[in-house]
Parts: sequence; structure tokens; C-alpha cells
Amino acid sequence: MKNFELVKKNGNARLGKLITAHGVVNTPCFIPDATLAAVKTLSISDLHDINMEIILGNTYHLIIRPGMEIINNAGGLHKFMNWNGPILTDSGGFQVFSLGKIRKITEEGATFRDHLSGNKITLTPEKSIQIQKILGSDIMMTLDECVDANRDYKYFKKSVDMTLRWEERGLKEARNGKIGNNSGQQIFGIIQGGKFEDLRRYSLLKTTQMDFDGFAIGGVSVGESREDKYNVLSWIAPLMPADKPRYLMGLGYPEEIIEGVKRGIDIFDCVIPTRNARHGQLFTNLQLNSFEDYKYDILKIKNSKYKNDFSLVDETCDCYTCKNHTKAYLHHLLNINEILGMRLMTLHNLRFYMRLMERCREII
Amino acid sequence: MKNFELVKKNGNARLGKLITAHGVVNTPCFIPDATLAAVKTLSISDLHDINMEIILGNTYHLIIRPGMEIINNAGGLHKFMNWNGPILTDSGGFQVFSLGKIRKITEEGATFRDHLSGNKITLTPEKSIQIQKILGSDIMMTLDECVDANRDYKYFKKSVDMTLRWEERGLKEARNGKIGNNSGQQIFGIIQGGKFEDLRRYSLLKTTQMDFDGFAIGGVSVGESREDKYNVLSWIAPLMPADKPRYLMGLGYPEEIIEGVKRGIDIFDCVIPTRNARHGQLFTNLQLNSFEDYKYDILKIKNSKYKNDFSLVDETCDCYTCKNHTKAYLHHLLNINEILGMRLMTLHNLRFYMRLMERCREII
Repeated sequence: MKNFELVKKNGNARLGKLITAHGVVNTPCFIPDATLAAVKTLSISDLHDINMEIILGNTYHLIIRPGMEIINNAGGLHKFMNWNGPILTDSGGFQVFSLGKIRKITEEGATFRDHLSGNKITLTPEKSIQIQKILGSDIMMTLDECVDANRDYKYFKKSVDMTLRWEERGLKEARNGKIGNNSGQQIFGIIQGGKFEDLRRYSLLKTTQMDFDGFAIGGVSVGESREDKYNVLSWIAPLMPADKPRYLMGLGYPEEIIEGVKRGIDIFDCVIPTRNARHGQLFTNLQLNSFEDYKYDILKIKNSKYKNDFSLVDETCDCYTCKNHTKAYLHHLLNINEILGMRLMTLHNLRFYMRLMERCREII
Repeated sequence: MKNFELVKKNGNARLGKLITAHGVVNTPCFIPDATLAAVKTLSISDLHDINMEIILGNTYHLIIRPGMEIINNAGGLHKFMNWNGPILTDSGGFQVFSLGKIRKITEEGATFRDHLSGNKITLTPEKSIQIQKILGSDIMMTLDECVDANRDYKYFKKSVDMTLRWEERGLKEARNGKIGNNSGQQIFGIIQGGKFEDLRRYSLLKTTQMDFDGFAIGGVSVGESREDKYNVLSWIAPLMPADKPRYLMGLGYPEEIIEGVKRGIDIFDCVIPTRNARHGQLFTNLQLNSFEDYKYDILKIKNSKYKNDFSLVDETCDCYTCKNHTKAYLHHLLNINEILGMRLMTLHNLRFYMRLMERCREII
């Protein structure tokens, strides 16, 4: 089944449609984290209200809570959380590397202790796919090794080859005919190689020779400089298969997303809008005239200058928060640690990111 | 201005309309706590969705955060929180007695240290009204002394007389022609006297001789037995002026509300539905056939038996939570301390209370 429709190009930037078993997503798109089967603070109807089309579940977190038995009994993640739109799940690899206590990586896979109970978990390329079949996500990610940006060329070279072998195993498991809680699952491969152009090109070549439904650029949110990130994007994004969706994992700030769109990326995800919202950091005053001419502001609502500021949060925004509440009110809600405050700010930041993507699509 | 319309009586129970400067409330009604200028976890649109008609602000908490200067700059509490419906504010008295560190009560008023900064605050009957004028609530409550149920008759007798003198002072301040942020404010008097019938009757007689817009029964949520509460209600409620609204302060569980309605109470408020929701206690399966024949269940969602229970939270409920989510999902959300979980449960419990009041009105 064709899973990507290219509608229009503008330079390297692509306007398209990502087609999944749970609906079509307009690209370029941004995916918010629903780490533990909920976009923190928001209901499903809130997500619909801000035109959210797709969400991301974290395999590592969901293994631990609520656990696969419960999600399987529910009939998959869609039914468990009552979200009927597309879901992308990660492989668990990134969280293993960033959160797992004591981890050991071998050719077989990754063994680690979970951050809550300390229980030992082994995640292999096959196991990751088996879990994602139970989750029933629309897009599964293959297990890869995420490498700290500070490791040397030699380590990266070895790692890229192991990830390629893991990808073959993951792909084989995905295509083995066994169906979990979603018969229309896709699987994406991941291009690694750090900041090294030859390794990235090698990984791109080898990964795209495999029968994946889409391709992702991994390892750009683990410590690289912004220049390194943009270099990787410039080398790789335009060479990724034109007929398949292209996903940049784990980025980022609005300017990083714009730079990604410009270079031909279709899909983004990041914790920034939701996590920053809960800490009182709001993205405001979006002005995106072209991929070269854009600006926005960051408003730190806890700043005492907002205590008596009865203007709306962001005059340029159409979200519920901005249509109804003042900076002074949000400042007060954050000050008293009121849940409603975190929710109103999450809603705003995600709507900001949705508007950012809408503007990107208009420009293309 | 007439502020209460009696539509129908059934025994002592009254169907009516409470008329305020910000709209009409169908009675008997229940008022949720918006202690710090927000019903914890819920947005204004959530409140509208469950047909909430009136909310309660706590003077004591609002003095401390955000403080009167900010609320006055906003133009009052309605504008500060963007709630355009009726608001009732308490006098601060109850919180002073239940929360204030080190308090001293004299004829002049109550002096105490706030529970956050430890700052000294003096609340007199006049000051309480001045503050409530700034808040701009539709219904102000006069300052009274809340007495612990375990104090003796002698203490109560003295206290009732002081409260009567405080009420005269509060009423005078309310009617002094100075207008705050709402030109249509009403003021209610409060009947005290503990579990002592003669003191209650005396307080009723004296309080109702004053020109209040409505009358409340106070001091029934500070340690009395349920029998004592019902006795007070039986003695006093039917004798309260028929042409004025009758408010039972701080109660209660559904059966307490039903018993209050039966005895002629029009207005209730309580933290139970919202606070219990945040701790995972849900009110379910309401069956209210008459004021004598009713039942409901309490569901403790944290119980591990709900881990794998994929039935809806309450089949008999029409709220967003019950139309969309299973017990297993709510169990999971509480288990991970997810804000969305507290919000979905608050929404359900308040809708339960709204349905309870709707059923009471239908029965009358």
C-alpha cells in the first residue's frame, strides 16, 4: 500500500500526505508525545480541538506502565486510550539509552534495568517489534543504537553496522506475517552515523536498500551542536527516497523544524512544546513569512512582570487559552501549581506548533 | 430586587430560581469550590459542559494568592478568571478557623497568620465585606465565628451573640453605598449555634430580623455527628424565610444533600466531589427515585481490580469521561499521577453532583 503522497515541492521542501491505517496526516507534520498513553494534561477532545492528527507512544515507558498485558487486553493502544487517529511508536531504543539504569548493549540487543522497579528488561530488535505489534501503532520504528554525540568515529562506525543488522532483524520480524492489534502497521528504518558525513551516507544507502515503509534520521537530539544537526539534514534529507515519508526524530525548537522542512523532512516529534509548557515557557507571536524570514518569542509566564499583565497570552493565536485568558491569570495558576495552568499552557504550545506546521504547508 | 423565585414545593423541598447579577441558577443547586480562582483541573468550558451554573471563591485563599491588588486590577474575580456566571464568596471565616496558623478572636475580628508566608492578617466583619466587594462576587457571606463542634454550650452561647454583632457590622458595611467590582452584590447572613436547638432557634430569629438577601446554616461541617447535622436541618431549614434563598454551608455527601433538599435547602457547596476525585474516589450509579429511596456507589479507581477492567467508568453517566474512557485507563492515569486522570475524574464527580441536583429538581 502506498503510504505517502507527494502533493507539491518547493525547493527541497515537500507538501504531502502520510497515509496510515487510522487516517491521513497532512505533512510536514509535528507529533506530540503521548509517552504513557496520554499527551500530558490533555484530553482526546483537546487534541481534536487543536487539529492534532497523530500522536507518539513511547514503547519503553509503556512496557513498564501499564505493561503489555493490559494494553493487549484492551486491544491495543488506540483502544486503551480511546484515540482513533494515527499513532507512531518508537522502538524503545532512545529511552533505553537516555533513561535506562545500567544498560548493556550486545549484538543480541540491549539489556537494562527500568527506572522505576529496577527490573531487568532485554530489548532485541525482534522484541521491540513484537511489543509494537501489541501496541498496534500505525507506524513502528525499528530498534537502533542511539550513540552519544561525543563518542569517536570508530565507535560510530561499528555502531552503524550493528544498527543495520538490527534493522534487518526488525524488518524481518515486522514482515513475518504475525499480526498484532493493527493489521495495517508500517515500519520505518532509521539512519544513524552521528556527525560523520561518510557514515551517514553509508547508513542512508544501506538502510534505504531495505524494504522499509519510511525512513527516519536518528541521533540528532543527543548532544550534537546545531551546526552538526543542520549539516546532517543537508546531506541526508534530500537524498532520502522521494516516494517514502521522511521523519526527523526528536527535534525540536521551531527554527529547527523550519530548517528541517526546508531540507525535505515530512515528520517531526519533540517533547519541547509540552514539557516547556508545564514549566511555564510559552511560544508566542509566530511570524513565518518564508523559510528564511521567520521569528517568534518565548514568554516565561512565571516572570513577575506578568503578575499584573491583563493582556491575552498571545494575540496572534487562536487557541482556547489565548481566546479566554490573560497573562496575569496564567501567571497566578502557575504560581499556585494549579493543574489547569499546565493544561492551558500545553494546549497553547501545541497549537503554536500546529500553526507552525500549517504555515509551513501554506508556504510550500 | 427579588433574588429568589419559588417555583414549587413538595413537602418542605423547594424548587426555585436564585437570581443574581450574573444570571439565574436553578435550585436546589450545588456549588463547586473554585478556591484559588479555578475549579481545580477544570476549564471554564468544562464547567459549561457539565451545566455548572455557579461557583464559589474562597476569600481567605484569594487574599493570599493572587492578592486583592491583582484581582482589583483585573476588575474583579469574574474578569480575572473569565467566568461570566454567578459567583458566591465565603467570608474567610471558615478557613481562618480551619487553616490559619495561630489565630486570635476578639470582638473586633480575627487575627491570624496565613499558612504560606506566616504574615499577620486581621479579618473584621467590615474587612471581609470590603474584600468581597473587590472580588465582586454575586453573593457575599457575612463574617461569622465557626466553632468546633466539641466546644461547650457556654462557648457556643457567647459565640452566637458575637456572630450576631459581627453580622450587623457586615451588613452595614455591605449596604454603605460603596460599590466594588459588582453593583449587584447580595449578602447572606449565617445561622450558627452548633447542635443546640435553643441557640440555633435564637440565632435564626435574630439573624432573620436583619435585612439579609438570603440565609445560610453554618457550622455543620466542623465535626458534628450526622445525626446532629440532620437535627439542625430539621429544626431550622423549614423555619427559614420562605421568600429568601437558603444555603447549607460546606455539605456534603450525596445523602446529606438529599436530606438537606428534603428539608428545604436551596443551595449547597462542598469540596468532596472535587477533592475525592483527585484521590481516585468516584461517585457512580446514581439511583434517586425519591428522597426516601436512593442509592449510589463509591468506586475507588486505584483498586488493582480495575487494572484490567475495560468497562466504562459509569454506564449511567453522560459525562465526557464516562462516554470515552474505561476504568482500566483511569486506573492507569492515576497510577502514573497523570494530570489528565485527575481532570477526567473531577469532571465525572461534578457531573454526578449536577445530575444529583437535576434529579432532586425533577422529583420536586
